[in-house]
Amino acid sequence: MREIRVGLIGFGTVGSGVVKCLHNNGKLIGARSGVQPVIHKIADLDIVTDRGVPIDKSLLTTNVSDVLDNPDIDVVVELVGGTTIAKDFVLRALKNGKPVVTANKALLAYHGDEIFAAANESGADIYYEASVAGGIPIIKALREGLAANHIRAIYGILNGTCNYILTRMEREGLSFQPVLDDAQALGYAEAEPSLDIDGDDTAHKTTILASLAYGEWFGMKPLFIEGIRHLDLVDLRYAAEAGYKIKLLGIIKLAGNNGTIEMRVHPTLIPTGSMLANVSEVFNAVYVKGDVVGDTMFYGRGAGMDATASAVVADLVDVGLNLTFESPQRVSAFRPHGTYSDVVDMEDIDCRYYVRLEVLDEPRVLGRIADILGNGGISIASVTQEEAKPGTDSLPIILITHQAKERSIRRALTEISQLDVVRGTPVMLRIEDI
Amino acid sequence: MREIRVGLIGFGTVGSGVVKCLHNNGKLIGARSGVQPVIHKIADLDIVTDRGVPIDKSLLTTNVSDVLDNPDIDVVVELVGGTTIAKDFVLRALKNGKPVVTANKALLAYHGDEIFAAANESGADIYYEASVAGGIPIIKALREGLAANHIRAIYGILNGTCNYILTRMEREGLSFQPVLDDAQALGYAEAEPSLDIDGDDTAHKTTILASLAYGEWFGMKPLFIEGIRHLDLVDLRYAAEAGYKIKLLGIIKLAGNNGTIEMRVHPTLIPTGSMLANVSEVFNAVYVKGDVVGDTMFYGRGAGMDATASAVVADLVDVGLNLTFESPQRVSAFRPHGTYSDVVDMEDIDCRYYVRLEVLDEPRVLGRIADILGNGGISIASVTQEEAKPGTDSLPIILITHQAKERSIRRALTEISQLDVVRGTPVMLRIEDI
Repeated sequence: MREIRVGLIGFGTVGSGVVKCLHNNGKLIGARSGVQPVIHKIADLDIVTDRGVPIDKSLLTTNVSDVLDNPDIDVVVELVGGTTIAKDFVLRALKNGKPVVTANKALLAYHGDEIFAAANESGADIYYEASVAGGIPIIKALREGLAANHIRAIYGILNGTCNYILTRMEREGLSFQPVLDDAQALGYAEAEPSLDIDGDDTAHKTTILASLAYGEWFGMKPLFIEGIRHLDLVDLRYAAEAGYKIKLLGIIKLAGNNGTIEMRVHPTLIPTGSMLANVSEVFNAVYVKGDVVGDTMFYGRGAGMDATASAVVADLVDVGLNLTFESPQRVSAFRPHGTYSDVVDMEDIDCRYYVRLEVLDEPRVLGRIADILGNGGISIASVTQEEAKPGTDSLPIILITHQAKERSIRRALTEISQLDVVRGTPVMLRIEDI
Repeated sequence: MREIRVGLIGFGTVGSGVVKCLHNNGKLIGARSGVQPVIHKIADLDIVTDRGVPIDKSLLTTNVSDVLDNPDIDVVVELVGGTTIAKDFVLRALKNGKPVVTANKALLAYHGDEIFAAANESGADIYYEASVAGGIPIIKALREGLAANHIRAIYGILNGTCNYILTRMEREGLSFQPVLDDAQALGYAEAEPSLDIDGDDTAHKTTILASLAYGEWFGMKPLFIEGIRHLDLVDLRYAAEAGYKIKLLGIIKLAGNNGTIEMRVHPTLIPTGSMLANVSEVFNAVYVKGDVVGDTMFYGRGAGMDATASAVVADLVDVGLNLTFESPQRVSAFRPHGTYSDVVDMEDIDCRYYVRLEVLDEPRVLGRIADILGNGGISIASVTQEEAKPGTDSLPIILITHQAKERSIRRALTEISQLDVVRGTPVMLRIEDI
């Protein structure tokens, strides 16, 4: 049984979780895997605050060099977060030939290419299971467990904050803002929540999964991102009546037979009976369609001290085994395989759409709308038109379309919104029949 | 990129799937992982039948020595099935120092200890991802992805035939036998279905998962096994009314704080809203509770040519990487870690129970039944008693109990069944609040 000396940078929530996990389960991990990661140094600007986990204070340092340049450290765990100093630390560790484990999705999403190039140059490992979907071993599944498959599609519920908000809106019939307020009070949402609710965090994870699936490091540029801030409760209700739930999904899929790819993040209507629709509260799930394995799903906690630590420690075991067997980069951090590359422009995707319009209670309104859609090549799958409420002169129309190009629906909705009988801005949401 | 020469024994459904997968995706697998498994020999008694997959006929042989004793073969894939000649083949391959990949759950369930001992003696790998839950990479998840965790519990829907039958009974309101007949006609159930419907196949997989989770090779002896053959449609209905679905589960969990374990296979009532309850048709899922990661679930196809091939080929990649990096047994096939060992006797488990009694329509019947349960220390959580149907003199009572020992409920039901007001044999099913 080999001890692996771990240098931790960042003693926050996840760092404390890693310390706790190794303290509680270190012996079991060693007995089970043959390597036992042991905390050797922890660098943080704040080494005074009690983190509530058992740690020998002499291991704490404010000097990051005590980790990065310490010949006794076998592996560096980067838990600083962000894309600035974290990047420096990771590059410096790799340059020193030290393998790195990180949970930093933003760093990889923006600088993955540079970081993997540095890892390849040094020959050291970089592992990042905790960067996507927390404790769910989805990176390992994509790189190893499903290695036999062309990936047809991935649909991910990748942000626990968004899923928690959507779950409560749907179950309690509450609007977005009060649920967000409550989520913030309960600690399920950050004081500055935009990274989560505007879809960026989901996008970071989506591009990592896309790159692993399709063998090209895409970065953030090709991603279409739409969050949940604008979601209106009535659309959750109408969606439910039509047999759908609304989830914020990261969507990656083969767009056609020519190897082009769709990558996008947006609130999505999915059938109520589908596996993903049943993923509630802060839980995450990644639905992967492989050409050989068929449909699979991986479910669990996407964040939090312990779930994230579970993934970090699993990576430490992998790195430890690679050190033991002198097989660094046994499984490449990211290996381009050049099968696919072009990401389809958002306007060129094919999708079904949910549309809600507020229209005047006048004759022939629906006909005029249907004409515009029809002229745009969009056929209507279902229409729901309620009676106008007493005292109002307008009413909502809910349309669900057949498959159409995003460009077509956008054009048609622009035209429809200019009709004198249409009030306000049409609501358009995308549907995936997972 | 290294080619791995594969010798296949057994050219049936799964063997054909492996050939097809390597033919279609071999190049991608090589580009992605650095190793490309290539079929080098296929041994089967029947080398005449066209399997519908592209294969050079010169690779076919009826002589198993052409695989087992062939110095050109890097890895042996055993897909013969059964526990007799398959065992000989696996042991012979290992003795020859050849790594083995197998999908054979029965073989491991009955002879895992002997086979792993042989692997350890020879130093060769044995991988068996396909033996549990088909294409779902659950073995890899337990051994690697969740390596940081003490496993608190595993609940598995591990047999697609049973899940298909239960799904159709529930959805279509059909009894067991006609659904089984139809499943056999459609090829979802074997002509001799007992291995599936009596729970033995689920038990084979359950003991493999239990051994991985708890570091002791348990074999089949400690397992309590009850299948779905006896299930009555009315119990699915009453369960649904009470908010439960009935699934055949393999259940493994820590029984208490003293490290004892429960291992059992039986039809189980689980809450309708739970993730596992939503797993339908032939799909499998394994719900794993870890002490660090929390709740996770792994979902996918548990059988079939392609899903099983996906797991076999993933194992071939792992074996190939181990050959490339000279790291055989990097992840041990099975490593005892001596943390747990005793399996609780079935009579000593604690559970909640669903009980259905047919009783005469007389006064004080419920009171007498409640007295017997109460005297046995079993308290009732809910009772449903319907009115007797016109023309009958008996009526059903549905009881749901609080937690009680299996011994207590068995004794109480024996006593209850002897009451003059009780007709027939009481139905008892177990409840898990997953």
